[in-house]
Amino acid sequence: MARINDNYLKLKAGYLFPEIGRRVRAFQKEHPEAKIIRLGIGDVTEPLPPACIAAMHKAVDDMGRRETFRGYMDDSQGYDWLREAIAGHDFRARGCDVIAGEIFVSEGAKSDTANILDIFTRGENRLAVTDPVYPVYVDSNVMAGNTGPANDRGEYAGITYLSVTAENNFTPALPASPVDIIYLCYPNNPTGTVLPKAELKKWVDFAREHNSVIFYDAAYEAYITDPEIPHSIYEIDGARDVAIEFRSFSKTAGFTGTRCAYTVIPESLTGRTAAGKEQPLHPLWARRHNTKFNGVSYIIQRGAEAVYSPDGKAQVRQLIDFYLTNARLLREGLRKVGISVFGGVNAPYIWLKTPAGRKSWEFFDELLTKAHLVGTPGSGFGASGEGYFRLSAFNSRENVEQAVERFQKLVS
Amino acid sequence: MARINDNYLKLKAGYLFPEIGRRVRAFQKEHPEAKIIRLGIGDVTEPLPPACIAAMHKAVDDMGRRETFRGYMDDSQGYDWLREAIAGHDFRARGCDVIAGEIFVSEGAKSDTANILDIFTRGENRLAVTDPVYPVYVDSNVMAGNTGPANDRGEYAGITYLSVTAENNFTPALPASPVDIIYLCYPNNPTGTVLPKAELKKWVDFAREHNSVIFYDAAYEAYITDPEIPHSIYEIDGARDVAIEFRSFSKTAGFTGTRCAYTVIPESLTGRTAAGKEQPLHPLWARRHNTKFNGVSYIIQRGAEAVYSPDGKAQVRQLIDFYLTNARLLREGLRKVGISVFGGVNAPYIWLKTPAGRKSWEFFDELLTKAHLVGTPGSGFGASGEGYFRLSAFNSRENVEQAVERFQKLVS
Repeated sequence: MARINDNYLKLKAGYLFPEIGRRVRAFQKEHPEAKIIRLGIGDVTEPLPPACIAAMHKAVDDMGRRETFRGYMDDSQGYDWLREAIAGHDFRARGCDVIAGEIFVSEGAKSDTANILDIFTRGENRLAVTDPVYPVYVDSNVMAGNTGPANDRGEYAGITYLSVTAENNFTPALPASPVDIIYLCYPNNPTGTVLPKAELKKWVDFAREHNSVIFYDAAYEAYITDPEIPHSIYEIDGARDVAIEFRSFSKTAGFTGTRCAYTVIPESLTGRTAAGKEQPLHPLWARRHNTKFNGVSYIIQRGAEAVYSPDGKAQVRQLIDFYLTNARLLREGLRKVGISVFGGVNAPYIWLKTPAGRKSWEFFDELLTKAHLVGTPGSGFGASGEGYFRLSAFNSRENVEQAVERFQKLVS
Repeated sequence: MARINDNYLKLKAGYLFPEIGRRVRAFQKEHPEAKIIRLGIGDVTEPLPPACIAAMHKAVDDMGRRETFRGYMDDSQGYDWLREAIAGHDFRARGCDVIAGEIFVSEGAKSDTANILDIFTRGENRLAVTDPVYPVYVDSNVMAGNTGPANDRGEYAGITYLSVTAENNFTPALPASPVDIIYLCYPNNPTGTVLPKAELKKWVDFAREHNSVIFYDAAYEAYITDPEIPHSIYEIDGARDVAIEFRSFSKTAGFTGTRCAYTVIPESLTGRTAAGKEQPLHPLWARRHNTKFNGVSYIIQRGAEAVYSPDGKAQVRQLIDFYLTNARLLREGLRKVGISVFGGVNAPYIWLKTPAGRKSWEFFDELLTKAHLVGTPGSGFGASGEGYFRLSAFNSRENVEQAVERFQKLVS
C-alpha cells in the first residue's frame, strides 16, 4: 500500500497565486464586461529585449542543423559561456569573488529556493523567515516535514517568524536564539524594501557565529537604484562561507514565461553531517542537479547570455526603468489620497497599508469587485502582512495610470 | 549549525554518465588525435524536426511583441493546447482514457521520475526495481532516505531488485512479497527489451491487489515497432488506478538539449495517508508542481506542440526510423562476430554480452582505448548488468558504420 507524504496535508489552502487566479476568474465570469487590471502576481508585461530575441532565433537555427545541434549538456549545471558571463557581469564587476563553477543555471529561483532543502536533513534544522514572506520558503519546508502544523495565524510550528512591519521600519531583528537556516529576500518580496549593507552584515556575522546557512534570494536585484544598497550578499565580507544566493532572469529581463535563473553555491560553504563533520554543500547540490534536473534548454541559455551583451544590458536597463517609473506613479498616486505606501524605490513592489484598517482579503475583494483591480493580500504572505496589500509595478503605463485613478476614486 | 542530508553520502561514486564523461575526457586529453565515437550516453545527434524549428521561431517572435508576449502560465502544469495535443495523439488515439488535466508538462522525464518521490512518505514504502535499472530511480530513493547503505554488489538495503538477464529472457518476475512502489521502464533502458501486454497486465494486477503504485517510464515508446507491444501502461485495463506514466520528447523528437517531457497522473490514482485514508495523488503532484517548478518555457512548449502536427509527425517518424536503422546495423554487425546481442528492435539501445566474459568496466576501458568507442558498462545499471554492455543507436550513419567496423576488428 503506497503511503503518501502526509506533510502535504498540513499545507493551508492553495498556493497564494492560484487562489487569486481562482477569485479573479470567478469574478470575470460573472462580469465579462469588467476591464480588470492585474497588479497581483508579479508578472512582467513587456516583451523580451530584442537582443534576447535575436540570440534565441540564432539558437533555434543552431538546433536545426546537424553541425550546430546541441543534445544533453556535459553537465546540467549550465553552459560555460553563460556561467562565465554571469560570474563576470553579476559578481566580479561588483567585486564579488564568485567563479563560474559555483553557478548552477536553472529554470527558476522559486524552484531552487524550494528544492535546495533536498540537500539538508529533515526536521532537525532550526528555520527563520521574515514575516511577511514569499510563501514558497515556508511551503517547501512544510512539504519536507520540517515543521509542525499551522496555528490560527497560519504560522507553522518549528519556524521562527521575524516580523517586518512599518513599526520596525521593515528591518528584521536577529533571532533571539540560534537558527540553522535563514531565508532573506532583498530587495524584498512582498514589501519592496531593502537592507543596507550594515544590516546585511549583521546577518552574515550571525550566520558565521552559529554556523547557519543563509538562503539569500536576490531575484529583484536589478531594481536597486540606491548605490549604497548591496546587490549580492557576497558584497559582505565572509558571506562566501555562509550564504547561497538565488538569482533570476524573470524580473530582470522579463523571462517569467521564458524561464531561466541561477543559484550560487560557493565552494567554501559547508554544512555538518550527523557525525558533526564539515561537508561542502557544492558537491551535494551538483549531485542533486545532475540527478533530478536536466539543465535549461540551450535555446533559453543563449537568450540569457544575450542579457549581458552591450545591447542586452541597455535594453534591460530600459525595461527596469520603465517598471520603476510605474512604481513611482503608483507610490505617488496612492500617497496623494492618504495611503501609507512602502517599497517601490528599489523594487517593483508597492506595499501599502489597507485603508481604514481593513483585512487584506477583504480589501482584495473590494478592490476587485468595485475597482476591477487585482492586488495581492498581505496576509497571504504571513500573519504580519495582515492589514497590508501588495501592488506590482509590472504593467503597461496606460494600465498603471488607470489603476491609480480607479484606486483614488475608490478610496477618496 | 546547518545539518546536511546524510543520505547523499550513501551514494556510490558519481552518477554513471558524468563518470563516463570523465574517463572519455581524460583519454581524449592524452590522445588528442583519437577520433572517438560516442555510443555511450543515450543522446540524439540529428537536428530537430523542421516543424519544431518553425514553431519555435514563431514562438520567439511572440515573445518579442507586447500583444503576443507570454509571462507566467496560469498554472505550471503546462499550456492547454500542448496538453490537449498530448492527450489526443499519445493516448486517446490508442484508446487510452487520459485527459489533458491529468498531464503535467515538465523539463524532463528523469527529473520527474526522481522528484515524484516528494509526494510519497519517506522510509516506509517498499520499493522494487528491475536490475539492471536506470540509475536515477535508485539514486533518488537513496537521496530521500528510502534505503539503507549499499552492499558490495552496489545494492541498497530496502530495495527489491528484480533481475532481468538473458537467463529469464529479460522478463522480470513479480516480487515474491508485496511492494508499494514499482519502477518499470519499457521499452527498457538499458536492455532495449520490451514487455508484451500479457506480462504488463500481470504487473497491473499485482499493483491492484497490493495497492501499489507503478512508476511507468515510457520515454522510449516511440521506438516500438511491434504492433503487439503496448505504448502506454494505460492500454492495460485498470492501470489508471495504479500507474503514473512518464514520457519525454527527448528521444522522440530529439529534445535532449531542448528539454520537454510530461507525466500523467490519473485522477483515479490514490495512495494512503498515515491514517489509512485514500488520498488522490493528482492534487499532491499539482501542489508540488506549482510550488517547486515554474513550468516549461512557452517557446519550448510551442516546439513540443509541433511534434503533433502532420509535418512534425512525419519528421519524427523519419528520425526514429533513422535511429532504428542504426540499431539494426549495430545488432547485425555485432552478431556477425559472435556477440550475443539483445534489444535494438523496439528501442534505440543494444544490450550485449561482453566478449570473453569480461567485466563491464574492463570492456569499457578496452573499447575506449583500443577502438576509441564509448559505450556504457552494464554494471553501471546494477549488479545484474555485470558482464553486459550498452550501445546507443543515437549517432550518424557514418559513425555507426565505423563503430561496427572497429568493434568487429577489436573482437575478431
